[in-house]
Amino acid sequence: MKNIAVSLAICLAYPLISAALQDKDHKSGSSSDGGGGGHTPEVPTSLQIVTFKWHHVQEPYIIALWILVASLAKIVFHISHKVTTVVPESCLLIVLGLLLGGIVWAADHIASFTLTPTVFFFYLLPPIVLDAGYFMPNRLFFGNLGTILLYAVIGTVWNAATTGLSLYGVYLTGIMGDLQIGVLEFLLFGSLIAAVDPVAVLAVFEEVHVNDVLFIIVFGESLLNDAVTVVLYNVFDSFVAIGGENVTGVECVKGVVSFFVVSIGGTLVGIVFAFLLSLVTRFTKHVRIIEPGFVFVISYLSYLTSEMLSLSAILAITFCGIFCQKYVKANISEQSATTVRYTMKMLASGAETIVFMFLGISAVDPNIWVWNTAFILLTLLFISVYRIIGVVVQTWILNRYRMVQLEIIDQVVMSYGGLRGAVAFALVALLDGERVKAKNLFVSTTIIVVYFTVIFQGLTIKPLVQWLKVKRSEHHERKLNEKLHGRAFDHICSAIEDISGQIGHNYMRDK
Amino acid sequence: MKNIAVSLAICLAYPLISAALQDKDHKSGSSSDGGGGGHTPEVPTSLQIVTFKWHHVQEPYIIALWILVASLAKIVFHISHKVTTVVPESCLLIVLGLLLGGIVWAADHIASFTLTPTVFFFYLLPPIVLDAGYFMPNRLFFGNLGTILLYAVIGTVWNAATTGLSLYGVYLTGIMGDLQIGVLEFLLFGSLIAAVDPVAVLAVFEEVHVNDVLFIIVFGESLLNDAVTVVLYNVFDSFVAIGGENVTGVECVKGVVSFFVVSIGGTLVGIVFAFLLSLVTRFTKHVRIIEPGFVFVISYLSYLTSEMLSLSAILAITFCGIFCQKYVKANISEQSATTVRYTMKMLASGAETIVFMFLGISAVDPNIWVWNTAFILLTLLFISVYRIIGVVVQTWILNRYRMVQLEIIDQVVMSYGGLRGAVAFALVALLDGERVKAKNLFVSTTIIVVYFTVIFQGLTIKPLVQWLKVKRSEHHERKLNEKLHGRAFDHICSAIEDISGQIGHNYMRDK
Repeated sequence: MKNIAVSLAICLAYPLISAALQDKDHKSGSSSDGGGGGHTPEVPTSLQIVTFKWHHVQEPYIIALWILVASLAKIVFHISHKVTTVVPESCLLIVLGLLLGGIVWAADHIASFTLTPTVFFFYLLPPIVLDAGYFMPNRLFFGNLGTILLYAVIGTVWNAATTGLSLYGVYLTGIMGDLQIGVLEFLLFGSLIAAVDPVAVLAVFEEVHVNDVLFIIVFGESLLNDAVTVVLYNVFDSFVAIGGENVTGVECVKGVVSFFVVSIGGTLVGIVFAFLLSLVTRFTKHVRIIEPGFVFVISYLSYLTSEMLSLSAILAITFCGIFCQKYVKANISEQSATTVRYTMKMLASGAETIVFMFLGISAVDPNIWVWNTAFILLTLLFISVYRIIGVVVQTWILNRYRMVQLEIIDQVVMSYGGLRGAVAFALVALLDGERVKAKNLFVSTTIIVVYFTVIFQGLTIKPLVQWLKVKRSEHHERKLNEKLHGRAFDHICSAIEDISGQIGHNYMRDK
Repeated sequence: MKNIAVSLAICLAYPLISAALQDKDHKSGSSSDGGGGGHTPEVPTSLQIVTFKWHHVQEPYIIALWILVASLAKIVFHISHKVTTVVPESCLLIVLGLLLGGIVWAADHIASFTLTPTVFFFYLLPPIVLDAGYFMPNRLFFGNLGTILLYAVIGTVWNAATTGLSLYGVYLTGIMGDLQIGVLEFLLFGSLIAAVDPVAVLAVFEEVHVNDVLFIIVFGESLLNDAVTVVLYNVFDSFVAIGGENVTGVECVKGVVSFFVVSIGGTLVGIVFAFLLSLVTRFTKHVRIIEPGFVFVISYLSYLTSEMLSLSAILAITFCGIFCQKYVKANISEQSATTVRYTMKMLASGAETIVFMFLGISAVDPNIWVWNTAFILLTLLFISVYRIIGVVVQTWILNRYRMVQLEIIDQVVMSYGGLRGAVAFALVALLDGERVKAKNLFVSTTIIVVYFTVIFQGLTIKPLVQWLKVKRSEHHERKLNEKLHGRAFDHICSAIEDISGQIGHNYMRDK
């Protein structure tokens, strides 16, 4: 059974290789492909019964084939339960990507297949984040919103600033050699490497099953830090472009303003589209067949609109998912709801699979590798240490206000769960090599950091959680009694706030 | 309620217009779009808080927006049941397309949005045909396979030859003026206009509800004639390219051989992928989430593979759907089966909607219009008359062998249901304008023919069916008694064939 699957995978890898080869032929200009049949108007010399028209179907074929290979890999990984209980799927996919990338490279010497930022941001990230938003446990999320926001905003700024500045400080000692870059480049690198990655957190935490509060804090942070990441990245990218000497106080104020514009704007775009989606699904009674399509198309438009206005697209689609879920589920038919649920899970899972496989494949290209031991090791050291310091200090402040305290054990998991992933990789790949001289060093370091966090921390977080005896998530359906009492308590709290005139976090519950 | 939907549709049409305008700006080279933020590396002069980056998101945005507009249009059409019971949705969509195309044209004077053959053959046709194959009533289809094949093969060749030759005959009288084309071009045009279109037949017949046998014969013909259409189109396209004087007997034999290669090859590709799909779904027990994805990816690969080898892609994906359905449904989980069912219906319905809307939009471009009254009217006349003659003669032959006779009424509906559609339009759009001088005349005539069959015949087929008192489909769940007896009869027939040593069409039933 295993053999069948493995040989299937190999059989399917073969066309990819020949695809790469064909691609090379195409690039070197020898279009030997005659072609007279099918749906292409090419000039034949005589009637050909069968023609092989690879270029005709190349693009969709390669995409479909990669999706198939990634999906088959998932089957193979799960044939033996022993492997997947120890090694997270994301690690296995990265390793598979490295292998496949190696094969293609050996056959071809051209890295035709890499994770391009466009594909990642436009086609792979949206389904993952929409899935996260649409299935967000709202009560838990909004109940911990303050905590999540603190980590997402202050924590990310702290990580970015300290990592960037510390690296610059060490750079001044000369230990890294002469990289020909200034403090702004270091801050730019710090800002893209600072953010905890939602894809990586989801992939690793879904196999660990820590308790819900801990999960929502880490995962919520990874989603909401997007606005900070986008702003920091854009600000420092702009600063690098206009040159350090032209950075005035006005520019810095603009940076702060743009944080509020990007975060609040993105959220608003999401809410507007969620409202639109909820409205549209009220009228789909006679077109049940295409009903599920609206959920995907309108959410996706919220993402694209936000991206178009340079707001936080992740926030937009997250909040679109969060705010539409109740209304959409109530408006559409039961079959449509099932279709939406499973299709969304399928798209998200597929996208995640492809992201990790391509993170592996992208590392194979030797042209991007610039090795600088000091820079790479210090980056790993700084992001780990400052993450721990950030978590401890912020938790200390938070625990003075939180009803449910975050224990030392929780803090360890939160520090350890600060995984970096594909967002950082896509951002670093977007850097302009002309402008940022050390781009390749940044790319190499980001790959190492992503691999370190996903593979090393991903492998060890499960034993760590077991060793620390972290409270695990308990899956039990709430009893009717619990539900009724919970609901009653909510109403009482909200009534008390109403009477006392104080607006707390129960305020919105009855509105 | 109606107003809301209408204003929604108008609101959503607006960005399309501005999109077109932006597109024009882009073409005329004035890329005023500064852009310094977001995920694009462009050179800013100072930090910009909000930038409007249309080109960045243009491509996916326009696609998502068109899908949304088409879906909203469907909602609007179905708000009033009075309209849709009289006018088929396909007509309404074509009219909407004409309106939207007119608006974009008025604002823009560039026909930016047309139904390109690539989009149609690669992305819109496959879901429609896969849906048809996957939900094919196998018993009915294979029970009438002989009849379907006769109409599909002989009927289509008959239609193509007679239409092409008759047009050429009239052309020789000089009534059409001097078109500077020869007999081969006429036959090429005949072969692309001859084929009954699966998309149009589905769209019109699903609202008419004729009895199952009549439907499967017309619809089966429209699917299986693809091999004939592809071959005839390719053969005459090649003949036009190599010139009439170079067409030898060998070339003609090659044409006949290529028919068998294209049809049997396409079917085999479909069966191989159906087997692969059935095999893969046996191993998806542990990856239920991505299970539905395999159905779509592997079926799509069957289509692309067939297209790559210049075989009949429609036959491939139809038979992939037909042969995998039983095994896939048995292998995957119940939720996955529901997801596959509804997602497939949604994709097919969405694709159909977009096809008809774009058939409307594509007709707006004045640059493609060449009017030749004689040519257009005679084409309409010939395709109608020869369709009737073909149906009557073939049915007369068939009725000598069929147990269930096809009545005169059935023949009227079959003749009248010979709708032409998007396949013909896409094929004519693929013609090489350099090689086929009369391309624009062919395109214009095809649009008129498609509009005539879809709108005029689509509007009148329902009254006709009611007036003729055609047996309608009866939807009743078969009783247990009927099922048991039906099953018993099958086994008895198959046993009798086995004993008598005769191989009839029950032979495969017990194997």
